Amino acid sequence: MDYVLPLTELIEQFRKLPGIGAKSAQRLAFQMLSWDKKEIEKFANSLLKASNDIHYCPECFNFSTGGGVCNICSSSKRDKSTVCIIASVRELATIERTHEFKGLYHVLHGLISPMDGIGPDNLKIKELLNRLSRHSEINEVILALSPSTEGEATTLYLTRLLKPLIKKITRLSFGLSVGSDIEQTDELTLAKAFEGRRECI
Amino acid sequence: MDYVLPLTELIEQFRKLPGIGAKSAQRLAFQMLSWDKKEIEKFANSLLKASNDIHYCPECFNFSTGGGVCNICSSSKRDKSTVCIIASVRELATIERTHEFKGLYHVLHGLISPMDGIGPDNLKIKELLNRLSRHSEINEVILALSPSTEGEATTLYLTRLLKPLIKKITRLSFGLSVGSDIEQTDELTLAKAFEGRRECI
Repeated sequence: MDYVLPLTELIEQFRKLPGIGAKSAQRLAFQMLSWDKKEIEKFANSLLKASNDIHYCPECFNFSTGGGVCNICSSSKRDKSTVCIIASVRELATIERTHEFKGLYHVLHGLISPMDGIGPDNLKIKELLNRLSRHSEINEVILALSPSTEGEATTLYLTRLLKPLIKKITRLSFGLSVGSDIEQTDELTLAKAFEGRRECI
Repeated sequence: MDYVLPLTELIEQFRKLPGIGAKSAQRLAFQMLSWDKKEIEKFANSLLKASNDIHYCPECFNFSTGGGVCNICSSSKRDKSTVCIIASVRELATIERTHEFKGLYHVLHGLISPMDGIGPDNLKIKELLNRLSRHSEINEVILALSPSTEGEATTLYLTRLLKPLIKKITRLSFGLSVGSDIEQTDELTLAKAFEGRRECI
């Protein structure tokens, strides 16, 4: 015996979270037990509410509430001719914060990864094809996938798949990070930055 | 707008945990939403159960369940003549894992820290005095407090307070860590290790 049973159980629940080891789980459980009972109930209710109220948008597979399409798909301010393909909803929020992209999204919910047994059928690709066939106004698809092995495999797969269907298929550019130091930049990125160089005007 | 409201609320709840920043809170909330609804309910129920079932032991202020004293205070196998003073329940578990100490505990629930407005009255010290007066069998008090500024202040305070009441007041020894390197040991610890040197037998 180390802790009372309800505490041990709570620690085990925390351990199921990614990046939370034994020590962190203990720390979190102890901290939470030091809260007011009301605060703990608030936390638990937040969790249950999120689990019950959130569903996927039937168009783009972003999170949505209230049963219908998400607030991006239903917005009249978005450009319906451009669809940005992303791996997960987290990337959607990151892109939205740039205020650069005004089109719609399509969330794949993963990347092709044969090592993990994830193929095209495990992603929202059938749904993408279906969506493109229903919306002839879509004339550009932007592939905004991370330049990892899985991201590159998925970009390649989708490029080949969509080529016959969509006029313009683009991907995000490679290059130097803003505020970065050329001396600290890895050679591959630097090579890509040369390759993608633009004329000064 | 970045996320749907129930998700934003869940992220805010996670941010209240110590050491969880904005990015980690997002990661945890997203991960949890990817769980089965049943798993999420299990987590929430664990939390509520721990909050409802756990109370402080009226003797030593360890965690306890079922309304009575904790399983250490109620155990017939523990030496009731020795009480080890600790700052928090977390340290109790750490000491138990050594299997070295067989006496009882007393949890102060903090350390004296004037900078944070924590004085002796905010700790379970009145309760300790009360306990010592009720249990004349207690003949040793071990002060097992971290050698930080706050720990040292509390050790000093308790030593003076308990001196007239208890025959033997001890504190944990300072010295080298097991498996450590003398070259890597800080001077203060090394000096303490010299000071506390023992005869080889």
